[in-house]
Amino acid sequence: MKKGNTVFFNTSPCITSFAAVCGSKEKEGVLGKFADITLDDDMYEESTFEKAECKMLSTAISLAIQKGGYSEKDIDVLFSGDLLNQIISASFAARDFNFPFLGLYSACSTMSESLLLGAMLVNAGYVNRVVAATGSHFAAAERQYRYPLEQGTTRPPQSQWTVTGAGACVIAHEGEGIKIVNGTMGKVVDYGVTDVNNMGAAMAPACADTLIRHFRDTETTPDDYDIIISGDLGALGSRILKDLTWEKGFDISEKHVDCGEIVYNVIEDEFQGGSGAGCSAVVLSSYILTKMRAGQYKRVLFAATGALLSTVSSGQGESIPCISHAVQLEL
Amino acid sequence: MKKGNTVFFNTSPCITSFAAVCGSKEKEGVLGKFADITLDDDMYEESTFEKAECKMLSTAISLAIQKGGYSEKDIDVLFSGDLLNQIISASFAARDFNFPFLGLYSACSTMSESLLLGAMLVNAGYVNRVVAATGSHFAAAERQYRYPLEQGTTRPPQSQWTVTGAGACVIAHEGEGIKIVNGTMGKVVDYGVTDVNNMGAAMAPACADTLIRHFRDTETTPDDYDIIISGDLGALGSRILKDLTWEKGFDISEKHVDCGEIVYNVIEDEFQGGSGAGCSAVVLSSYILTKMRAGQYKRVLFAATGALLSTVSSGQGESIPCISHAVQLEL
Repeated sequence: MKKGNTVFFNTSPCITSFAAVCGSKEKEGVLGKFADITLDDDMYEESTFEKAECKMLSTAISLAIQKGGYSEKDIDVLFSGDLLNQIISASFAARDFNFPFLGLYSACSTMSESLLLGAMLVNAGYVNRVVAATGSHFAAAERQYRYPLEQGTTRPPQSQWTVTGAGACVIAHEGEGIKIVNGTMGKVVDYGVTDVNNMGAAMAPACADTLIRHFRDTETTPDDYDIIISGDLGALGSRILKDLTWEKGFDISEKHVDCGEIVYNVIEDEFQGGSGAGCSAVVLSSYILTKMRAGQYKRVLFAATGALLSTVSSGQGESIPCISHAVQLEL
Repeated sequence: MKKGNTVFFNTSPCITSFAAVCGSKEKEGVLGKFADITLDDDMYEESTFEKAECKMLSTAISLAIQKGGYSEKDIDVLFSGDLLNQIISASFAARDFNFPFLGLYSACSTMSESLLLGAMLVNAGYVNRVVAATGSHFAAAERQYRYPLEQGTTRPPQSQWTVTGAGACVIAHEGEGIKIVNGTMGKVVDYGVTDVNNMGAAMAPACADTLIRHFRDTETTPDDYDIIISGDLGALGSRILKDLTWEKGFDISEKHVDCGEIVYNVIEDEFQGGSGAGCSAVVLSSYILTKMRAGQYKRVLFAATGALLSTVSSGQGESIPCISHAVQLEL
């Protein structure tokens, strides 16, 4: 049932339903056609960015429940977290529902951590249905992690753009859906990168570490997958990931796609592409899972990536510890 | 295996080892005799409060592994989280170890969430040994959540004192230990309390909700337990908890003890007593589990309590959503 750091699921918990909400900038890219709700105004009729983020998350959760033909009482537990201090989006979204809540923090790898833990609980028979969800909001992230938007700070070329969006999946025993076959738990990896504007370079080694352990534990190679998805490494981070895995004998270059790289249409404006907990959540819960359901991808490896820094740790001169959890999805 | 929101463990995962580190103020109270390491200087030879908090957590994890006769390679995964933004204590502590890390955030109920999830993974056979750990540091919490210490702000009478300390438990299949028999997942409960200095009043309803659901799901009454432990409600919150459970037909007054209430010797100085993620973690991982091991308590209900606010949510006029997860421990 477990080999190395990978847990195998014999009852194959299924993603039976999914939903995504995305912002106005994201709408212009690939998500425009695939997300359930696309916003014209990123404030989402709320008075603050944080409340808008929470509303997107809560809406994605409600929609995923509804689209699967479930009602609130069918859900046994919510796994969620987000980038805001004390994961307030997730906690306040959980307040809207009458099922238990298990709060997570894994930065931008929260989507794969929540899918992994959700699948574990469903496969063990502890619960019947779990919602795994996360999101982020560009403006809320900017003012918490970086500078006030009003300041108009110049962005360095290695920077990424936090995705405004939220995604949610229902994981269940019964029903038709996309199976979660196994999951590889991430380790904290820190190559000593201290540049908080270069998250892709910081996170790539953690993603490489998880992918390599996954290939070894499952005795698969990159060729066994239709697509291998990283979370939000961006363009530079993706190149580093390909190099690091290639050095260890796994050439993922033909199969690899990064959610951050594909989320925006014109990535020149956003330098390295998208990032944020919502990035991989919204790409998975719209574009990827829709294509899987249509049979275009049959076997997918999804490894969201997270940078576990804070403004305090960086201010105190610390480097950026990173993590990536992976789940293998099959039609 | 599940009834209501309670998951029952048929293989009875055991707490085979535990360790606690506490600060200089905590040393003067009940923890002085029970903690493994008591600090004379809360800086713990580090340059910042945050680094001291991380070192306490890392030390508690190492000690718990070592005291159980384990080595690092025996541990399959670490569940941890803390109060600092982006749970940097847990993430940076996890960097010290070569096993996977699943980050949690549940404010001061992190200890029971990590025990609950750890027991779930061990009972399902996914992993053999899990470390569940958390901690907090008074000075790091004060400057993040309240005011700079140098300002010497007057504390209101309903306030609590964040515990400086960390606790860790190893949960394993094999071996002698204290069994985790079942666990009740918490729901977010918000009675509309907005006073950030009155966490006890905010958290008591969440704790009452979880305890009542636990009693109903397990068909037990307060009399079936030697002791019922809440996390960090403090003196006022504990009185509210007793009232709320009594109103629903469960009189816990003879069995209830609050970690925040017992952690300091002279609670007048700290008004309502202790709080913080470290509060319940350190009291459980020293005093309570030592007494259980000695046979003084045979059946314990442990329900740590968390307030899921942030300075941003409070600043935006939000009330305080709270949660409490519970685990039932038996000798």
